[in-house]
Amino acid sequence: MTAYQELAARAARMTAINNAQGILGWDNETVMPHGAAETRAESLAALALVHHDMICDPKLGDLLEEASGEDGLDAWQRANIREFRRSWLSETALPPDLVEASTKAVARCELRWRQARQEDDFAGLLPSLAEVLRLQREIGKAKGERLGLSTYDALLDQFEPGLTAERITVLFDDLAGFLPDFIGAVLDRQAGEPAPAEPQGPFPIPIQKDLAKAFMTTVGFDFERGRLDESTHPFCGGADNDVRITTRYDENRFASALLGVMHESGHALYEQGRPRDWLNQPVGRSRGMGVHESQSLIIEMQAARSHQFLSYAAPILREAFGGEGPAWTADNLYRLYTRVSRSLIRVDADEVTYPAHIILRFRLEKAMIEDDLPLADLPAAWAEAMDDLVGITPPDDRQGCLQDIHWPGGAWGYFPTYTIGAMTAAQMFDAAKQAKPTLPDCLAEGDFGPLVGWLRENVHGLGCLYEADELLVRATGRPLDASIFENHLRQRYLEGI
Amino acid sequence: MTAYQELAARAARMTAINNAQGILGWDNETVMPHGAAETRAESLAALALVHHDMICDPKLGDLLEEASGEDGLDAWQRANIREFRRSWLSETALPPDLVEASTKAVARCELRWRQARQEDDFAGLLPSLAEVLRLQREIGKAKGERLGLSTYDALLDQFEPGLTAERITVLFDDLAGFLPDFIGAVLDRQAGEPAPAEPQGPFPIPIQKDLAKAFMTTVGFDFERGRLDESTHPFCGGADNDVRITTRYDENRFASALLGVMHESGHALYEQGRPRDWLNQPVGRSRGMGVHESQSLIIEMQAARSHQFLSYAAPILREAFGGEGPAWTADNLYRLYTRVSRSLIRVDADEVTYPAHIILRFRLEKAMIEDDLPLADLPAAWAEAMDDLVGITPPDDRQGCLQDIHWPGGAWGYFPTYTIGAMTAAQMFDAAKQAKPTLPDCLAEGDFGPLVGWLRENVHGLGCLYEADELLVRATGRPLDASIFENHLRQRYLEGI
Repeated sequence: MTAYQELAARAARMTAINNAQGILGWDNETVMPHGAAETRAESLAALALVHHDMICDPKLGDLLEEASGEDGLDAWQRANIREFRRSWLSETALPPDLVEASTKAVARCELRWRQARQEDDFAGLLPSLAEVLRLQREIGKAKGERLGLSTYDALLDQFEPGLTAERITVLFDDLAGFLPDFIGAVLDRQAGEPAPAEPQGPFPIPIQKDLAKAFMTTVGFDFERGRLDESTHPFCGGADNDVRITTRYDENRFASALLGVMHESGHALYEQGRPRDWLNQPVGRSRGMGVHESQSLIIEMQAARSHQFLSYAAPILREAFGGEGPAWTADNLYRLYTRVSRSLIRVDADEVTYPAHIILRFRLEKAMIEDDLPLADLPAAWAEAMDDLVGITPPDDRQGCLQDIHWPGGAWGYFPTYTIGAMTAAQMFDAAKQAKPTLPDCLAEGDFGPLVGWLRENVHGLGCLYEADELLVRATGRPLDASIFENHLRQRYLEGI
Repeated sequence: MTAYQELAARAARMTAINNAQGILGWDNETVMPHGAAETRAESLAALALVHHDMICDPKLGDLLEEASGEDGLDAWQRANIREFRRSWLSETALPPDLVEASTKAVARCELRWRQARQEDDFAGLLPSLAEVLRLQREIGKAKGERLGLSTYDALLDQFEPGLTAERITVLFDDLAGFLPDFIGAVLDRQAGEPAPAEPQGPFPIPIQKDLAKAFMTTVGFDFERGRLDESTHPFCGGADNDVRITTRYDENRFASALLGVMHESGHALYEQGRPRDWLNQPVGRSRGMGVHESQSLIIEMQAARSHQFLSYAAPILREAFGGEGPAWTADNLYRLYTRVSRSLIRVDADEVTYPAHIILRFRLEKAMIEDDLPLADLPAAWAEAMDDLVGITPPDDRQGCLQDIHWPGGAWGYFPTYTIGAMTAAQMFDAAKQAKPTLPDCLAEGDFGPLVGWLRENVHGLGCLYEADELLVRATGRPLDASIFENHLRQRYLEGI
């Protein structure tokens, strides 16, 4: 057995463990009885330890070294070694006591956060959040030393390899220059039109479920290798060849469940479209959280909220729910699902204001990691940035800096991927339309073939063969460019295209 | 850390892996999409290997030795070491190449069996079944040498530790002397009465589900630590604090689903009643397959098919399904669910003839393992034994020696546990009624409290603290005794009590 073959065998075994973790994770959120929580946590911890032991095997470094020197490896195999080394470097960069300290601090802080958010008590959260921040800094420093990155870039790298604060700053500054005036212009335009009408329920949940599955089939979800279920917080999880998405239903509104399903279906198409021959190898994984988010947003934001798709979907929805009247026209639904408002909560934000919520979080978390913003000053800095970017200030911290779990949860460096994903989605959708001119007309007939075909060829089927930058340049002809996203917003929200 | 503490920590980790396997196994049978089968098999194989590596750790033998010599251990701790040593001895007895050869031979033979059964082609199955038999003999020999047991006893020991062929022979010979005439007498008695009436459906599946859950609650199933789902083959599985049973529904008959649920609930009560403080340790496990089967049969056969419980259940069933007429009386349902007939298929057999099916399988498999019966002669030997014991001969091998997966599946030594379970159930139920005289009247009110309380105290909560024999003697005052089971059959089927 060559060193490369030995590596591939080890990767397959680690993937098998990851797949077990994925299914247990799904089970946790969907069907597990409450009383099993502690037992399940033990199982997940045992599997994490098994996986960690596998990647920390002292022989692995030598195998990677040796395999890199082997002759006759093709591009996929070389990329496979590169990706294996990448996760090996990252996962072995941290001393075990730092991992343990961080795990414990996060568990404590998340618990504290649930209470602090409820009670609007930032001061009460401060000590445990400061501890998480301190440990995130240490983690970033340790990984950064190993990977040759700055502390914050090392945190970013965990979610989107190769992404740097320098790069994000250029892109986000461009967007931050564009958004405030743009939001004002969109709101002015909306004010000059009659408000869209809300379809009136109730919308029976069995019908919502049938529609969700029908739309999943429309976009190309493969039910032979995946499922749809329910959970409090929708997600895309599961395992290779077993991609499980969830949604939640509300009898009074169907849009949240169905657009949520479109979003998760975008993630799922990526997972189901990864290269079959490399599924259990590092090179067969998805490229990163930014690219992943772009795939969900292409389906949910670019395609499903388009005039074309809504002209296909409106009569289906109207018939399924027995709806009547002007609320059910494609045009009304389009205006409803592209409605913009200045709002305080990120997860409820629309496509236009969402990036503003992200830009401020990126700026603040970077400043905190780099010790340029004392944690105690976060609430004030948050309010100021909200005012600048969204044009609204939170009346309290619950609707301000206490709203998200990411920081208490130790996911520093994650936020930027949401907006990197949105920009990437716009740029890819634009390129796909140029490559497949019938794409919009096909959406109007419920045919996602041209779009998903383009994504499979240019994104899904490539796994980690290329770095994220190269993937995008190959797919769209240029690096990530904020102006394409801005053009998309301008066309949709000012020109009504 | 003492050697005992180190052992306990290792046991907890192994249990955490077992629990993960249990949930993945449940997922396989209930919700997994077809296309995930291969990926799932990889995960289960990886977990099996992880578990195997843990138990084959060369340090384990020394730790067991050292812990056994420690002072100050209580009875539970000493039993814990004994049970840990038992599984260690058994799992490390086999050379890895024998395990691998057996796994492969079983996989081939099961596949071949599905076809052979369909085509009634015993000759076609013979070569692969011979290979499984040969390897089972080797496995029995290797384990037997390690454990100081004969080859067949070593196979038995895998399913019910401590059970021997000598013991079974005495019990089964007693029963075999009783059954043929008894079956004749029961059929004569039945012939002298009008046949019971079948309630006429359809019986809507949502109603069957609600009833299943209601009856589970009645017997004491804890839904905070368990679930009910559907699968092709009903089972009780899952994990500690997460006991998952399944059933299958047929709109034309409700009894199969509901009595099946009672059966699995009996297994589940055992699992949910194991000692909480020892759940993740060897001593906290269930005692063996025979004892486990006794718990399902106490609920399904002894309690649920009693006059008392059926007098409680009949009006509930009638009301839920909107039934009318004489088919819905408690007396009719009693006669329906205690109907006896000479039949060919074990899984469809009634309480009276079932043991005859088992006795013949025990005799035949023991003879084959001990080389006293050539495999080629199995069909003829089967037909003869069926004629002797059940009074009917199969027209073909599909309804004869090809009907069960156990032998192709490598589960030699498993069959006897079904009837050991039935005898144990009768003996325990008898003892429980003596200890709790209100037990039958309580069943008539849907109150399983006295029965389940007795089971928790005398069986469930004891885990593996005692060997199976001692468990039974402590609970019932004597070792397993075929005459109690025979008395039960006589009372129910001849005296109608």
